This record gives sequence, C-alpha cells and structure tokens, in this order.
Amino acid sequence: MSRLDQQFQFLLEMDKEKQVQRQTRCTDKSMENDAEHAWHIALCALILHEYANADIDLLKTISMLLIHDVVEIDAKDTYAYDEKGQSTAFEREDKGAKRLFSLLPEDQKDYLYKLWLEFEENKSAEAQFAHAMDNVQPVMLNHADNGFMWGKNQVHLSKILKRQENTKKGSNELYRYLLSNFIKPHIEDKIMKDCEIPND
Amino acid sequence: MSRLDQQFQFLLEMDKEKQVQRQTRCTDKSMENDAEHAWHIALCALILHEYANADIDLLKTISMLLIHDVVEIDAKDTYAYDEKGQSTAFEREDKGAKRLFSLLPEDQKDYLYKLWLEFEENKSAEAQFAHAMDNVQPVMLNHADNGFMWGKNQVHLSKILKRQENTKKGSNELYRYLLSNFIKPHIEDKIMKDCEIPND
Repeated sequence: MSRLDQQFQFLLEMDKEKQVQRQTRCTDKSMENDAEHAWHIALCALILHEYANADIDLLKTISMLLIHDVVEIDAKDTYAYDEKGQSTAFEREDKGAKRLFSLLPEDQKDYLYKLWLEFEENKSAEAQFAHAMDNVQPVMLNHADNGFMWGKNQVHLSKILKRQENTKKGSNELYRYLLSNFIKPHIEDKIMKDCEIPND
Repeated sequence: MSRLDQQFQFLLEMDKEKQVQRQTRCTDKSMENDAEHAWHIALCALILHEYANADIDLLKTISMLLIHDVVEIDAKDTYAYDEKGQSTAFEREDKGAKRLFSLLPEDQKDYLYKLWLEFEENKSAEAQFAHAMDNVQPVMLNHADNGFMWGKNQVHLSKILKRQENTKKGSNELYRYLLSNFIKPHIEDKIMKDCEIPND
C-alpha cells in the first residue's frame, strides 16, 4: 500500500464518525452526531479563542477537536453523565485510537495518537481550551432546547457543575458566561434535579 | 448585546448547517449534510496538506474549510453539476454570507467574510488547496459507493473532469491519484455518461 492509499483508507474509515449519535439535540430537535459536533466545536474555537486562559496554538487546538471523538467509531459515545460508562471509557477509546490511527502511515499515526492522548490528559493549554469548547457547545444547544435532554436524563446540577470545572480550566470568562446564561435559567425553571444556584 | 452574546448568537445560528443536505451519500448510504462534509474535509486537509502544490498556511486553510459552506444555511446546497443553479449560486451565497457573518462583532464579521471571499475567488494557495479538499472528499465517497450518485444524476465524465481542474490547481499529486483510483474504475464500468478514459 502506498502512503496515499493508507491516508485515504483512514479518511474513508473516518466517514463512520457521522454515524455515532450523541445525547444532544440540534436546534431542529434531531440528535446530533459526532462529526457535526466536531465541526461545531472547531468553529467555536475559531470564534472564541480570545477567551482562553493561556496563550494557545489555535491550529493544534482545532486539530485536536477535529480528531478528539473519532475513537468513538469503535468505542461509541459515552454520555457525559453516565458514570458507569465513563469508568470504562478510556480503555475502550484507547483501543479504538490504536486501531484507527494505525491505518495511517507511521509518522501520522504517532502524531494523531499523541494529540488524542494530550486531549485526554487535559494538562496542556490547548487541551484545556479544547475541553472548554467540548463542554460549552452542548450546554449552548441544551439551553436553546429548554434543557430538554437534562430533564429527560434527569441530570443533577452538581454533575453539570463538576463537568464544567473543565471549562473553567480552559476559560474563566466562558465558564462565567455559560453559568449565568445557559445554566442558571434552568435552575430557576427547576428542570435540573438538585436546584441550588451556585456562586460563580 | 455584549461581544460574547453576539458570538454565541452566531454559533447557535451555525447549528443550522447540520440541516443542509448535500448530493453525496455516506458509507452507510445516508445523505451527507454540510456540517459533516465540512468536518470531513477539514480532516482531509490535516492529513493531506503535504501534497499541496504550494506552501500553505494550514490554519487558514482549515478555517476556510470550516466556514466555506455556512452560507448555504440561507442559500441551500447547489449541486456541483447543476449548471442553472451554479449560475445564480454566488449571488445567493453572498447574500447569505453578509447576513450570517453580520451576527458577529465587526472585526470577526470582516475576517470571516474576507476568508469566505478568498475561498470563492480561488486564487490564493490556501483557497486552491481548500478547493482540492472540497473536491477530493465527495469523489472518494462516490467511489466507495460504486458511483451511485453519478449514475443517479447522470453526470457526464466531462463535467467531473472540468470540476477536478480545481483539484489540479491545489494538488497535482492528488489529482492524479483520484483520477486513477476514484474515477477511472467507473469509466470502465460505464457508470458515467460519456465514457472516454482521459490522459492524465
């Protein structure tokens, strides 16, 4: 197989990301898939990067966002508030990462696997801002949908806030904005299960 | 409205890109939408940029790919081989670009409108490589689908080759590869309407 054969084999396999369904509804009430989500959060990074807590390499951040969920082609989406699923997610996803990135030539396999791990470890400025994007976008959509999926899945506010700690690591300003604008209205509406208005 | 209010208003409006259907089938035979396509071609640029005819700024190229089709939220998708539709596409899309990018703060509106125009004009190295990605990805998918949409829409080989001139401008190597690997097999199968094997 030539280098280009390997690259196109990978790019064709990536098409399956469009079939991985998430637990977020789009504005037309359809369920969002991973490819749509990855596009949307890459665009969020392009528009919102001025709010990152630290200087970030935007190309690296967007590259990370484009590939962060492709492992779910094998591992499937694990809902952010599914504790049991989350406890086994890394193992399943790491297996997926190894199989999928191995379709590429060695140098690109190494590059993407390391980029994916960097996202997972969530320590670099780019990974932390990428996580902020990954969290902000579904909260924006859930807010626009009157908190429907939070209500349906009986999500507790405490869990949403715990997850949003990652947003704070990437951007204090976006954290404050989403708390006031996208979360507080649904606490007041009692859509969330344990309804205490947090101090930001 | 605050700067962040404007930015989130734009990002929420962008969600509608997921509802714009294209004339390409994914590997599961579902019709692809614009958001899925934009994600897929941004990923193609990340993997294939080594084949660009000229040095390119990859961040600029990927940014262009992420936003190149958002104007279709207003203008709808125009099939690549619909000549009548193509003749009015720019006017419709320019109107869409002006409305959509105006949701953003002035500086970002100007930046994205110029980036979109640069893609449309197809003169810079980044725009030419972006067009190559925009052309290569549907041809890869159509090939994987045994040329189904080419047959259904009775697309003539001459028109496919005309469109692929844009791929050549961005990457001679990718043009040669797709001609041999993704197009020639369907000429031999007589799926395309006027079946002459071109010299590459």
